[in-house]
Amino acid sequence: MKDNNTFAEIAKALSEAEKILIFTHQNMDGDALGSSCAMAHNLRLLGKECWVMLNDDDIMSNLRFLAKDYCTTDENVMGVPDVSLILDASSPSRFPAKREKFEQGKLKIAVDHHLVDAADLDMKYIDAGSASTGELVFELLKEMGVAPDRETAEALFAAAITDTGRFTYSNTTAGTHEMIAELYSTGFDAAGVSVELYESENPSKVLMHARVLSGMEMLEDGKVAIARLSQQLLKETGAALSDTDGIVATLRAMKGVEIAAFLKEGEDGKSFVSLRSKNDADVAVIAKSFGGGGHKKAAGATLDMSLDEAYELVKKVVTEAVRK
Amino acid sequence: MKDNNTFAEIAKALSEAEKILIFTHQNMDGDALGSSCAMAHNLRLLGKECWVMLNDDDIMSNLRFLAKDYCTTDENVMGVPDVSLILDASSPSRFPAKREKFEQGKLKIAVDHHLVDAADLDMKYIDAGSASTGELVFELLKEMGVAPDRETAEALFAAAITDTGRFTYSNTTAGTHEMIAELYSTGFDAAGVSVELYESENPSKVLMHARVLSGMEMLEDGKVAIARLSQQLLKETGAALSDTDGIVATLRAMKGVEIAAFLKEGEDGKSFVSLRSKNDADVAVIAKSFGGGGHKKAAGATLDMSLDEAYELVKKVVTEAVRK
Repeated sequence: MKDNNTFAEIAKALSEAEKILIFTHQNMDGDALGSSCAMAHNLRLLGKECWVMLNDDDIMSNLRFLAKDYCTTDENVMGVPDVSLILDASSPSRFPAKREKFEQGKLKIAVDHHLVDAADLDMKYIDAGSASTGELVFELLKEMGVAPDRETAEALFAAAITDTGRFTYSNTTAGTHEMIAELYSTGFDAAGVSVELYESENPSKVLMHARVLSGMEMLEDGKVAIARLSQQLLKETGAALSDTDGIVATLRAMKGVEIAAFLKEGEDGKSFVSLRSKNDADVAVIAKSFGGGGHKKAAGATLDMSLDEAYELVKKVVTEAVRK
Repeated sequence: MKDNNTFAEIAKALSEAEKILIFTHQNMDGDALGSSCAMAHNLRLLGKECWVMLNDDDIMSNLRFLAKDYCTTDENVMGVPDVSLILDASSPSRFPAKREKFEQGKLKIAVDHHLVDAADLDMKYIDAGSASTGELVFELLKEMGVAPDRETAEALFAAAITDTGRFTYSNTTAGTHEMIAELYSTGFDAAGVSVELYESENPSKVLMHARVLSGMEMLEDGKVAIARLSQQLLKETGAALSDTDGIVATLRAMKGVEIAAFLKEGEDGKSFVSLRSKNDADVAVIAKSFGGGGHKKAAGATLDMSLDEAYELVKKVVTEAVRK
């Protein structure tokens, strides 16, 4: 892999460009959208024609406040870009719907903190030691002589806080906190951004999670935690089937749990199981035995049977797995 | 109210003392225990005889990793203290079981970030602009010429992260993040501490939270969320009364909620209420009307009535507050 360019080199390339199109990965998280918006906002302030070219319109509801008028999915907003800039990814394979537009760029640059699948680019700065791409954009903006304003601070705060699990993951560094401390000097509303990001759960979802967890079973001296969501409970709580994110993580986060299993009943009479393991157990093997797949610590499968049948089957298999 | 002393004056008093007893409020949170442990650890390193005199043994399970061998409830561990030092409170009314022991101190000092009910003390440093007492202890230790070590960093990180809701509450400042950035230089394991604080829940606690949230009520078009924990539910789930942290935060985190209230039934027939507000509502005023106290966005009170009575009363008062 080629060595990184310097921020000075990338800053110079951006300064010399007039039309800059920013790309980021599909299934955008806070860092993808936050770092892209911070960059677009400042490039516009510097007089550039600049857009964030989203792969699609699928923006998580808690991130929509970030997507200002520089975000688009319309490839006709700009002709040939002087620079195609990827943020929080380093290959156009991460935004397949906009790959062709990306390739039009006269100069292709990526700034990212993931160490995977870097494409052939003209310039890049990839630093896997950075907790978020937001922090790299912060440094790049400094190099360009830009002092962050409130809108920049909101976007970079969102980038860093989401990619570090509210500053609790092991990727968090002193530099992460130093950036946030500097952003505070803009007077931006960190608590307001946090409310958008973390305090916007639907009550129906909270109620559904509570009802599901109320019915959890602990097996094998607490090594197994298993819970289920029926269509009936879904209707009673008014939640959506997609609102189940976080349930299996809560089951796994409990002290002593080695394998967590969460089952939900589809509308078609099929059942889905999500599996998580904490230490040595391999749930990919279990998921595969059901015709599914995944990683050692996170896997899942669709079972062509009723929720009751699937629940008993998963219980049996998972219990056997932790006895080994 | 008398003006604050300087940290230099308090540092001098602590330096001149030989026996120092630290007190903090009952129903300890991470800031109470974290700031107390950081101070006790360093005073011992400075050769002092020092203990943290806990009001009682009721330590939340996720905070127990902080309570090292300098924590005790035994008043006989020390004779007459040269200094009785209150951290994260400013009145012995906040630790009724150890009030007499506190009064023995030749010099009485408080360091706190709450603006309420300061007792008559010999010295004090009260700064409501600080997000946590941990940050004040950090400054005081600096004044004493102490560089934090890993154990100090763990305790102060726990203090700050818990009192700021993982750096999302409006009390968080640039100074909070600057302290954390400095603490990282000790090489302490911030992610490990975060797992202790946020991912080591007892199954009984998770079950209790789920049962409490299953019974939540939404009032006033979802502007009020209220829930309750009875002694019976506590027994059924096997959880401890101190395991309730996080419930009121979950209630507040729901979309549209302006005021969240959580009530729990004590063993003595009394009831406790925790109140949180999201935007403009002032729950300190409500808590005060019940004889309690706190901040605008986080307050609480003990009510001398049954859970049923307290629940109806709080419902009425909180509903009126959001109608304003």
